[in-house]
Amino acid sequence: MDFSGFMALALDQARTGFAEGGVPVGAVLVGAEGRLLGAGRNRRVQQGDPIAHGEMDCLRQVGRLRSYAGTILFTTLTPCMMCTGTILQFGISRVVIGENRSFAGNEDFLRSRGVEVTVLDDPDCVALMRRFQAERPEVWAEDIGEG
Amino acid sequence: MDFSGFMALALDQARTGFAEGGVPVGAVLVGAEGRLLGAGRNRRVQQGDPIAHGEMDCLRQVGRLRSYAGTILFTTLTPCMMCTGTILQFGISRVVIGENRSFAGNEDFLRSRGVEVTVLDDPDCVALMRRFQAERPEVWAEDIGEG
Repeated sequence: MDFSGFMALALDQARTGFAEGGVPVGAVLVGAEGRLLGAGRNRRVQQGDPIAHGEMDCLRQVGRLRSYAGTILFTTLTPCMMCTGTILQFGISRVVIGENRSFAGNEDFLRSRGVEVTVLDDPDCVALMRRFQAERPEVWAEDIGEG
Repeated sequence: MDFSGFMALALDQARTGFAEGGVPVGAVLVGAEGRLLGAGRNRRVQQGDPIAHGEMDCLRQVGRLRSYAGTILFTTLTPCMMCTGTILQFGISRVVIGENRSFAGNEDFLRSRGVEVTVLDDPDCVALMRRFQAERPEVWAEDIGEG
């Protein structure tokens, strides 16, 4: 599967979030057959909602599914523990991560529970997070529970 | 601290959810000083939102906090892996659980990461879940990712 298109879509979501004044993390869910199921972005600031990380907002936008078997979650930033627990609970099969330089993620924990994990180390994803962390450090600290 | 009042409030939320046709799980967040911060309930069915478990909806209702240190989360049913990850990510200090007979929870995992966990084994919480599981098994299966 060519990942670049789906990660570009997730990055578009992240950039939209940044332009809205929010935390620039975007996510996309793709079905087992390679079809786009939905996209989302972190909306903590925009909606005043602490659980609206990019991955969570994406799953909310997709809505109810009977099964997540075979689905692939693309996220511009490595999942925090909330999003990691959600990936495991929902039974998402694979996670493709834009970058994990800006945040210490849970890749090994996901792998230990049977999730396939790929880290792209995408320079555009890194650059966006670095800019956000430099410009809005207090929002970033709050979003990762270090407020 | 007297837990009965807060658990009664969480159970009220669960019963409201059941009356709405939803998954009957309720939750309440209490601050370090014993003040009620907010309450919520599972709204998967009501809002078509797969991440709206009781604990998650409660945290959304409370809104943004700079810190969850010292907070206590009351929930009528033991947290699933999504809610467990969220409790850890947010740094919630303690979880008081109505019952864990109806679902295999993650109490030991929470404890291993430093969260204080109390299970009340409340017969009213058990009775409500048993009734729901018997009357709407397909909604329950979907909610715990076994749909």
